[in-house]
Amino acid sequence: MQRIIATEGAYLFDEDGNRFFDAISSWWVITHGHRHPRIMAAIQEASESYDQIIFAEFTHEPAETLAAGLLDIAPPGLRHVFYSDSGSTAVEVAIKMALGTFHNTGIARDRIVVMEHGYHGDTIGTMSTGERGVFNAPFEPLLFAVDRLPYPEAGREQDTLDAFEAICRQGRVAAILIEPLVLGAGGMKFYSHATLTALREIASRYECLFIADEVMTGWGRTGTRFACEQAGVSPDILCTSKGLTGGSLPLAATLCSSDVFAAHYSSDRRRMFFHSSSYTANPIACAAAVANLEVWRDEPVMARISELAAQHQQHLPRFSGDPRFSSVRQCGTIAALDLAVPAGGYLAEVGPRLRALFRERGLLIRPLGNVIYLMPPYCTSAEQLAAAYDAIDEIASLVLEEQRS
Amino acid sequence: MQRIIATEGAYLFDEDGNRFFDAISSWWVITHGHRHPRIMAAIQEASESYDQIIFAEFTHEPAETLAAGLLDIAPPGLRHVFYSDSGSTAVEVAIKMALGTFHNTGIARDRIVVMEHGYHGDTIGTMSTGERGVFNAPFEPLLFAVDRLPYPEAGREQDTLDAFEAICRQGRVAAILIEPLVLGAGGMKFYSHATLTALREIASRYECLFIADEVMTGWGRTGTRFACEQAGVSPDILCTSKGLTGGSLPLAATLCSSDVFAAHYSSDRRRMFFHSSSYTANPIACAAAVANLEVWRDEPVMARISELAAQHQQHLPRFSGDPRFSSVRQCGTIAALDLAVPAGGYLAEVGPRLRALFRERGLLIRPLGNVIYLMPPYCTSAEQLAAAYDAIDEIASLVLEEQRS
Repeated sequence: MQRIIATEGAYLFDEDGNRFFDAISSWWVITHGHRHPRIMAAIQEASESYDQIIFAEFTHEPAETLAAGLLDIAPPGLRHVFYSDSGSTAVEVAIKMALGTFHNTGIARDRIVVMEHGYHGDTIGTMSTGERGVFNAPFEPLLFAVDRLPYPEAGREQDTLDAFEAICRQGRVAAILIEPLVLGAGGMKFYSHATLTALREIASRYECLFIADEVMTGWGRTGTRFACEQAGVSPDILCTSKGLTGGSLPLAATLCSSDVFAAHYSSDRRRMFFHSSSYTANPIACAAAVANLEVWRDEPVMARISELAAQHQQHLPRFSGDPRFSSVRQCGTIAALDLAVPAGGYLAEVGPRLRALFRERGLLIRPLGNVIYLMPPYCTSAEQLAAAYDAIDEIASLVLEEQRS
Repeated sequence: MQRIIATEGAYLFDEDGNRFFDAISSWWVITHGHRHPRIMAAIQEASESYDQIIFAEFTHEPAETLAAGLLDIAPPGLRHVFYSDSGSTAVEVAIKMALGTFHNTGIARDRIVVMEHGYHGDTIGTMSTGERGVFNAPFEPLLFAVDRLPYPEAGREQDTLDAFEAICRQGRVAAILIEPLVLGAGGMKFYSHATLTALREIASRYECLFIADEVMTGWGRTGTRFACEQAGVSPDILCTSKGLTGGSLPLAATLCSSDVFAAHYSSDRRRMFFHSSSYTANPIACAAAVANLEVWRDEPVMARISELAAQHQQHLPRFSGDPRFSSVRQCGTIAALDLAVPAGGYLAEVGPRLRALFRERGLLIRPLGNVIYLMPPYCTSAEQLAAAYDAIDEIASLVLEEQRS
């Protein structure tokens, strides 16, 4: 275990004087780079006035400014914001909003449709909607049932759409919950804009709610601020966390449409949306997120993202025809490729070996089994990225050699 | 909605120049008082070095120091710490630890026993273990089944113990999950040390895990640092949040015994404890919690708690024989009394009316239905507390008068 004593830009610094290029953005939370000065200044300034403030009856400027700012940049149709603390709770809130909407309007709909290989968090509710496997086998007795669509493999997208439509026809579907364009923890599996658009269209046609889990995909990772944007999709409910504070402090938000809000807006307390968290709308975390919005407004963040995406495009072709790799792929700032080893999957023995070798070379890269991916912060330089690709090249050979021997 | 622009000590300050005595510690999170200087300084200092750092393979000083400090002061037998962000997630982690422990040791136990009127959070898993009602009716299809013990009403405690023993005898009980001594959101219901001790004894005898949800009761609220202490109880798993950072930033921790840890400590990844959060062990929040531990170590926190408890004791007798109230009660720094209105319960119409009248008088007091309670920060002065009691006296008459007319 390396003990980190400071972070800056694309680097983690340990107590022994080593530095690590954070090529996976400390598990996808760091967007602009570690400790963006404007965000850290906002944290310090907010702490001069605020700590936690009850968020019922009372409100505060950071939460209000953030909510208004989020709605300004969110896909059209999202009109309200609900705060919580983590990606998991943002999705829990979304699921509850979906069921509450139908319950409160007297419509019997409680089925939730998800996608194979999906990941939405590690609480009981979010594990229920994610892929089942060794991670959650002990908790199986507590998980609720969902309907699963096959992952829309390139060329087999129609199967996914047909499956969704068939489930909708059976009735009682409250919502479809999906990671738009990129299934993250499921193995950096990408699927097409057209599929996302078509899923949204089916949801609309059958009047079930469309929940976009943008916890990982949000804040520029896929090349647009939210992944939904590039598919022209407006979800009914959108979950965000991670990049929301630029990766500085815990915060999450669940955005919803006027219809979802209206279903819960009532003087009858049985219809209200009850969900409380110890630190709902923490003012210091909200201030960090407001500063993040200002960075997006005042700095060329989209240009940095485009540049990073362009650099991936330059490096990836060298691996495309390479028999050591398969599925060389990219979506915005995320690049992934699968190492050609016999036993794949998240628990492939090769994963820990790869990450140890990367770490020895000062690189924080954590393969998902045999899936090597890069998801660096947007301040990453051309040299840093090139070094990461060189290391992938070198270490892949080393590990494949080890596997053979 | 009052917009708060600053917090300090026992007060919230709004933009119109009003101040509010935070008599419920902003929903139970503020312990020493708002913005304790040492905690806020720690946040500012930590932000000079840290933002989020991946907490796998890598570690950092704030998380390590905090974990060691928590184990120093925790009830005996708790030897390991798992971080998350909120009270709800701390309990989700605890439930998963309990099921994982038995699953990994090949013992078929998956039942969870809870207490009537319990509250453990608002995620699907924690709602499943809490009291069912209008709050969670829409989500009923997603909740898992638990076994419920009757609340140990004074004089009826044996019924609770008998019920627990009967359930244990049926077998398959993995854990009992309870709020020790005080059921918070369930209506500030208190029960005896002896009952807590006896429940622990039964759990030990039937080898089921004892989970103490100290999210609200922790950090001095009940008169000892953790409520379990005064009953001489060492839980197998303990959940904490809220006062963990003194109420400054979101953080939670789930502490567990060596046995629970050992059941998950393996080179076989199928036995590992998988639970991830976007902001696990956020270094800035951990630094705030380390400063909180220092405040407990260096300042007379226990003396303040004793003084606050003594002041409650002076005020409460004036309400004890009063026909306007029933169940006048106290547990450490928490005082509660029920307003004698016909329709009680959380949704009693009288609740919103009471809190509006309190707010008009500069008091943040949010009755749980007809249950009026005070749970102020430990910096509360004798004058502030006396004013709160005077307001309860006056407003009770006013509201009862309104109810009659």
